Amino acid sequence: MKKIVLACDLGGTNLRMAAIDRQGAILYRTKRDTPKSDRADEIIRTIVEEANECREATKKEGTIEAIAAAVPATVNVEKGILMKSPNVPCLDGFRMVAALENELSIKAVIENDANAAAVGENWLGASKGCRNSIMVTLGTGVGGGIIINETVLRGIDGTAGEIGHICVEPFGEPCGCGSRGCVEQYSSATAIVRLTREKESLYPKSELINIPRLTSADVYEAGKRGDELALEVFRQMGFYLGIALVDLINIMNPEVIVIGGGAAAGWDLFIHHVEDQIRTRAFLEPGMRAKLVRAELGDDAGILGAARIAFD
Amino acid sequence: MKKIVLACDLGGTNLRMAAIDRQGAILYRTKRDTPKSDRADEIIRTIVEEANECREATKKEGTIEAIAAAVPATVNVEKGILMKSPNVPCLDGFRMVAALENELSIKAVIENDANAAAVGENWLGASKGCRNSIMVTLGTGVGGGIIINETVLRGIDGTAGEIGHICVEPFGEPCGCGSRGCVEQYSSATAIVRLTREKESLYPKSELINIPRLTSADVYEAGKRGDELALEVFRQMGFYLGIALVDLINIMNPEVIVIGGGAAAGWDLFIHHVEDQIRTRAFLEPGMRAKLVRAELGDDAGILGAARIAFD
Repeated sequence: MKKIVLACDLGGTNLRMAAIDRQGAILYRTKRDTPKSDRADEIIRTIVEEANECREATKKEGTIEAIAAAVPATVNVEKGILMKSPNVPCLDGFRMVAALENELSIKAVIENDANAAAVGENWLGASKGCRNSIMVTLGTGVGGGIIINETVLRGIDGTAGEIGHICVEPFGEPCGCGSRGCVEQYSSATAIVRLTREKESLYPKSELINIPRLTSADVYEAGKRGDELALEVFRQMGFYLGIALVDLINIMNPEVIVIGGGAAAGWDLFIHHVEDQIRTRAFLEPGMRAKLVRAELGDDAGILGAARIAFD
Repeated sequence: MKKIVLACDLGGTNLRMAAIDRQGAILYRTKRDTPKSDRADEIIRTIVEEANECREATKKEGTIEAIAAAVPATVNVEKGILMKSPNVPCLDGFRMVAALENELSIKAVIENDANAAAVGENWLGASKGCRNSIMVTLGTGVGGGIIINETVLRGIDGTAGEIGHICVEPFGEPCGCGSRGCVEQYSSATAIVRLTREKESLYPKSELINIPRLTSADVYEAGKRGDELALEVFRQMGFYLGIALVDLINIMNPEVIVIGGGAAAGWDLFIHHVEDQIRTRAFLEPGMRAKLVRAELGDDAGILGAARIAFD
């Protein structure tokens, strides 16, 4: 019988779970809507239902030994408590590990979702085999996970890794975090849309003008067709992402920086601007050393990382 | 008989050495001018002379077991090689550990000087007992040393910790590193003098106008007397230092940030500007957590850190 763990990725929209073996093979997976209630026990009930479904589906293959949950929150890993969960506020301060262990009678562990994705890419994806890696996720916001000597950097309270809130423009765009000019305001999928709207009056011939519900994917598609507005947006997006990555390169001297998330789809249009900033601004040796690579695991990075954490 | 190590701090100006015991007591110390030659063996010869003097002076107290040198260079600690040494260029690529072990017949180790100072302050100074600390040195440049889980952050090639080259103004002042707007250009002792010169035409009543060979200490003294130009310089210096520290707080969630170096003397005039930026920009919990403290060991941080590294 195999050793199997359950890995759960609790997002603002979906609650995904998988049963995963020690090699990282996904044996079974489930997906539900994240309950829209303001009660933590609704979320736990959904997780328990999914866990039971996974257990039933894999009972001939092996025994489930533990569960790990990747959560959109700062986490006290040792105490098993979610600290601050901006997108699922009912989980603020929730003792999730105790709740899961109580309901499922297996060992439980939680981890911040960006950290879990970094671990996943480091285990089976783009930074496999690297002891020092940084993962940057360009989604609604800009998330980050930092791995140093094969260990997730958590800091003293578990809040480390907030790469999206590196300041790249001191008097720049206000950020939801309370600061201004965070890289999240220039290089996230959300920022790509905002930058397009801000600049459209300068590009009256752009195909992006007056598109309702514009997405970063629309901007990318236009850019591939040579739309000047889209190209300018990705130039600026890459410029500021480059500045943030230069900071990380000078501070941390990583072996590899993995870039994932929805806006990473625009890779061809922004990555040379990122590389330009690294070439002109970073210290020579760490700048040459740091490989920039695209994430390989897509949406599975979080559950695979959580599984790895559960096995560890 | 005590166990004693030799700790050496190789600066651009002075070559200082001390014999230090396991408690961090400095049993004997020497200081010479750093040889102005372009040959590494001159530097080694001076170190050997100092080492012999220390050995002779402490021979009744104990035996010298190892030597550690703090050097103004990026360092490959494992191989014992200085990589890039901007202020003592003859040491670029020098196999210093092999040379020292050969000459002195004791075990040798080298470490970057800013990292050694961080270890020193962590052992016996301002960050004693903290597992996660960052040391920022405001001198001619801005240096840095980062300690995570009681280990110096070196990165994959040993170049990590270049806090002085966090970008705080993307189109700002050109920096010696090749980038623009590094915090070193706003918050070092050198920057304090430059900022004063840049702004003096706006403050015709300032006592700092037309002072030849102006130093950051002059600016600080004027500021203590209420000079408006000096106060504006320290406001800007603290603003940008604050932005860099916010980046570090959001990325690393440190327990303490130790500020040392000559320009830290201006503490009373800049620290509340730093704190303002942390309060308004950093994530709440890590911003509240990170204590800002002045370095306690002064010029001895490097040799004490080197000694600790030698004992380890």
